[in-house]
Amino acid sequence: MATPALSGIRVLDLSRVLAGPFCTALLADMGAEVIKVEQPGRGDDSRHFAPFKNGESGYFISLNRGKKSITLNLKDPRAVALFKKLVGRSDVVVENFKPGVLERLGLGYPELSRVNPRIILASISGFGQWGPYAGRPAYDIVAQAMGGLMSVTGYPDSPPTRAGESIGDLTAALYAAWGIVTALYARERTGMGQHIDVSMMESVFSLLVTATAICNYGGVVPGRVGNRHPISTPFDSFRAGDGYVIIAVANDDMFARLAEAMGRPELARDPRFLTDELRTQHEPELKRLIEEWIDGRPVAEIVAVLDGYSIPASPILSVAEVLADEHVAARGLVREVDHPKAGRVPVVGQPVLFSHTPGRVRGPSPLLGEHTREVLTTLLGLKESQIDALERERVI
Amino acid sequence: MATPALSGIRVLDLSRVLAGPFCTALLADMGAEVIKVEQPGRGDDSRHFAPFKNGESGYFISLNRGKKSITLNLKDPRAVALFKKLVGRSDVVVENFKPGVLERLGLGYPELSRVNPRIILASISGFGQWGPYAGRPAYDIVAQAMGGLMSVTGYPDSPPTRAGESIGDLTAALYAAWGIVTALYARERTGMGQHIDVSMMESVFSLLVTATAICNYGGVVPGRVGNRHPISTPFDSFRAGDGYVIIAVANDDMFARLAEAMGRPELARDPRFLTDELRTQHEPELKRLIEEWIDGRPVAEIVAVLDGYSIPASPILSVAEVLADEHVAARGLVREVDHPKAGRVPVVGQPVLFSHTPGRVRGPSPLLGEHTREVLTTLLGLKESQIDALERERVI
Repeated sequence: MATPALSGIRVLDLSRVLAGPFCTALLADMGAEVIKVEQPGRGDDSRHFAPFKNGESGYFISLNRGKKSITLNLKDPRAVALFKKLVGRSDVVVENFKPGVLERLGLGYPELSRVNPRIILASISGFGQWGPYAGRPAYDIVAQAMGGLMSVTGYPDSPPTRAGESIGDLTAALYAAWGIVTALYARERTGMGQHIDVSMMESVFSLLVTATAICNYGGVVPGRVGNRHPISTPFDSFRAGDGYVIIAVANDDMFARLAEAMGRPELARDPRFLTDELRTQHEPELKRLIEEWIDGRPVAEIVAVLDGYSIPASPILSVAEVLADEHVAARGLVREVDHPKAGRVPVVGQPVLFSHTPGRVRGPSPLLGEHTREVLTTLLGLKESQIDALERERVI
Repeated sequence: MATPALSGIRVLDLSRVLAGPFCTALLADMGAEVIKVEQPGRGDDSRHFAPFKNGESGYFISLNRGKKSITLNLKDPRAVALFKKLVGRSDVVVENFKPGVLERLGLGYPELSRVNPRIILASISGFGQWGPYAGRPAYDIVAQAMGGLMSVTGYPDSPPTRAGESIGDLTAALYAAWGIVTALYARERTGMGQHIDVSMMESVFSLLVTATAICNYGGVVPGRVGNRHPISTPFDSFRAGDGYVIIAVANDDMFARLAEAMGRPELARDPRFLTDELRTQHEPELKRLIEEWIDGRPVAEIVAVLDGYSIPASPILSVAEVLADEHVAARGLVREVDHPKAGRVPVVGQPVLFSHTPGRVRGPSPLLGEHTREVLTTLLGLKESQIDALERERVI
């Protein structure tokens, strides 16, 4: 096995719940040593998120795979001093407090950089570290709403709709992971760390490439079009006998193949359907023709037929079906880990396959404070008696 | 201005339409030299996607900001030979062909690696380079359907719903950008490049952290819950006088503040609403009470009240409203560039703010083949007469 890409990189992870932990889980999968810093007693809020197995949160286990946990009561200046010493031995700090909290703890970027100019600090928040909205609290649905995504998700006759997973947090996490590794790469040349500021609202908005093109160049405010594509047709879900089938066609050649698969090759020459633009204009008629052709047959049968014509088509899988899917299994995305309390549990890892420095789930999530002693002795050289005293005084 | 993080990195970009181009746009923003390799005559399909300004596609301009363009007819072995020579002078190749196409062109990873062992090849596809579904074509909606996201997006009484932007492509693009920079970082140590394989289906599925926790640990297949959060209440959109207002509460302290803001502090002690779990059980009653309190007042008024109590609340912005938003403007996410044909146009850049090596939109999208001569003369030392001959013979 090759040395992991991020081996030797130490990450101090002050982050809680979702955006920060997802970011550092990706770094851990690539071999970074991630030390999660938690509040003594309670730990990360998400340790207490249902559902549980043997009292352990599935949400927490999945997001904190392969990390270490130490406890530090950062309201105590002795804990802050210990954290700063750890900064001197680390490469990256990740946090997703509300902007200003880190500074009030005495751990803003200028302070950390004074301790260790090579440190990279990544801050993830709803609206970023500065700007008119920086002080506002935000959860995922706020980022999806303020980033414009909800306004274009859903059906024309339905209210604006939230994507059914926390895309606001997760997109910001992906951008932060990208930013951290980019900063690590830059540090190879400059020898200097830097501060990375990621906002959930902007992360969501940056993805709206189709919607902003329609708005900026078409002069139209894009609305909700259900499962249709705003500019390509047919590209939608269609009613079949046992559910919905996805059929996605984005050019004329592919539409000619679909017409052939439907046994109606003349449709490709029908003046209503000659181009993508015309097909989009005549979308309701085309949808009716396709559903007539499907004629209540099962999804699997339609997918098999269209596969034969190289036309993108698929069922809509439930989460249970994806977890049990043969392709997902073959690709090794879901790994089982042995958790000391929850037992053997499945964890979804990062999905990028690297040929030489593979990322993989490296272990279970840590118990609260499981590595406090190990980290304080090996990294900071504290004696067991000193650690006992810190524990008695609730510093750790 | 500091040296950009990726300056000195040269990317050969064979990718088309969305996932690949979005990935390389992020690299260009960070200072990489991205050379887009296009088919002579027609170029990237997305050059022909509406809407247009002076004949130039807004979608294309936005996704190809700050890149160069050269034309190579890769069906001609002379063009393939030129491409291989460029690989010898480059760091990264990005492609999103259907798996197998690159190999048939004689440009698979083993060939590229033989030319330049330091090359990093990133392949983005619907289902990855191998595995049971690798041969299947896929567009964004297929990835959203097969990755499980559609099954949890939408209302309980609506069909499965596509997130209204191409999250399948864009998430894969973000993972690829992260993978490329991680591989660049690893190369600093190993001196070797590698092949990175990113699948849209797996990229989407890897984000389903809440849904997979519910499924794996709760033993329940998660369904559609509209804008509600599956495990926190109140966390939803609520009807106001002039639209919907988002209110998001995820713990008991915050709920107590909301009850106070509503002028009904006793709700925090109501046995139905004592915990997040109980509030989720009694969600319909709580939603009714909140909408009664809103009582048809405008969104802005409700947001202002809740802001005063530090409760996450917001309007749902349209894409036009985000584009015109003062916070987005202050943070500099949207930049204007001068395009030789489209004129001065807005472009949304990458959203991560780096303190020392800032990413920024570095220029407009290239015209088709705009840099063919420059690249072939400066990088490969071809003479103008040789280039003229290649042009006459339709190699470039």
